Amino acid sequence: MQAYSTSADLMNMEQRKRAHLINSIGGFKSVCLIGSVDQAGQTNLAIFNSIFHIGANPPLICFVVRPDTADRHTSSNILATGSYTINHINEYIYKQAHQTSARYAKEISEFDATGLEAEYKNKFPAPFVRKSVIQLGVVYRQRIDISLNGTILIIGEINQLYYPEDCFCEDGYIDLEKAGTVTCTGLDSYHTTKRLERLSYAKPDKELTSIAIKHKS
Amino acid sequence: MQAYSTSADLMNMEQRKRAHLINSIGGFKSVCLIGSVDQAGQTNLAIFNSIFHIGANPPLICFVVRPDTADRHTSSNILATGSYTINHINEYIYKQAHQTSARYAKEISEFDATGLEAEYKNKFPAPFVRKSVIQLGVVYRQRIDISLNGTILIIGEINQLYYPEDCFCEDGYIDLEKAGTVTCTGLDSYHTTKRLERLSYAKPDKELTSIAIKHKS
Repeated sequence: MQAYSTSADLMNMEQRKRAHLINSIGGFKSVCLIGSVDQAGQTNLAIFNSIFHIGANPPLICFVVRPDTADRHTSSNILATGSYTINHINEYIYKQAHQTSARYAKEISEFDATGLEAEYKNKFPAPFVRKSVIQLGVVYRQRIDISLNGTILIIGEINQLYYPEDCFCEDGYIDLEKAGTVTCTGLDSYHTTKRLERLSYAKPDKELTSIAIKHKS
Repeated sequence: MQAYSTSADLMNMEQRKRAHLINSIGGFKSVCLIGSVDQAGQTNLAIFNSIFHIGANPPLICFVVRPDTADRHTSSNILATGSYTINHINEYIYKQAHQTSARYAKEISEFDATGLEAEYKNKFPAPFVRKSVIQLGVVYRQRIDISLNGTILIIGEINQLYYPEDCFCEDGYIDLEKAGTVTCTGLDSYHTTKRLERLSYAKPDKELTSIAIKHKS
């Protein structure tokens, strides 16, 4: 049976229940760890589940900051320093990644609290997560305030990109499934994936075909 | 081996290859069909892979429109009529869903071209996808133009919500995996999922526990 909820039903739900529901119904999400550092050198690591790219030229990536959450250390660090890292989560670190959402005091680094080791490389000023195999060094570009509910979008440009060489395909596609990247639903559910297939570029009156995955090495 | 690309490497890539790469490295994405209708009653159906919720109170959902794509029929319909539907994709319809990305002429409805049947209900003015088991009726709220690259964010409020009753959990979580919703990577890869686990609300100095999935029925 299909259940039906009106907007009034949704608004009448208990707040936490509605949060679970609305966080679920947007579909599977990209979930990543964002690493940053404040001007005194104190590191911060936080999990975000609303990350999306908004264009390839220049390569722009965006995430959503909710004003009432522990996210605020991340956004204040980014606005102060201009640099941050986005690190994919795999099944070996998803529990530590989830634990970064606890409300630690500002003077405690989630790198230390969760045991996720920081990694610095190629002169990028913000810390990467060593156990993450896909890592992005991002430079802050723009902040958009959404007046409807006080959330903030942080847009950055990809400045450094690290990925497993054997997950790179000839046409530029990166095989996240092979890299072990996980996805999430709702506020707390983590999932691995199983590929159905890659499909050819769609054209009117042309049958779709399967694209064979050809890794570079 | 981990490969390393600088922003200059990314900008020097062939355009289509860079598009595949940048579309991949944001992580797994929500992929849905957006149904709309123009003022003359002509329906439109298009696949979008950058859908994300931006808050539960009110329940707001957003998607990204790239100016240079077939997406433009969807956004012009939404701006003209104020209503649209977001329909989850499952493994029975992902090929038809992908096919909606072909550049059909304006006078051809992708519902007809792909064989995905439209469904109208509870007086909602825009067409749902009948074979989609999670369907959202959405009312347009705001448009945000991103000057960095000309993309547009369309924000809407959830007005009607349909989901399988047996996928609803007591705490409000909807089990998308049980509902058969698929996720995507890059421009063309579709995936089913396998849950690792749901994790408890994280607190400092408290061990995370697994949340048992308790469906309502």
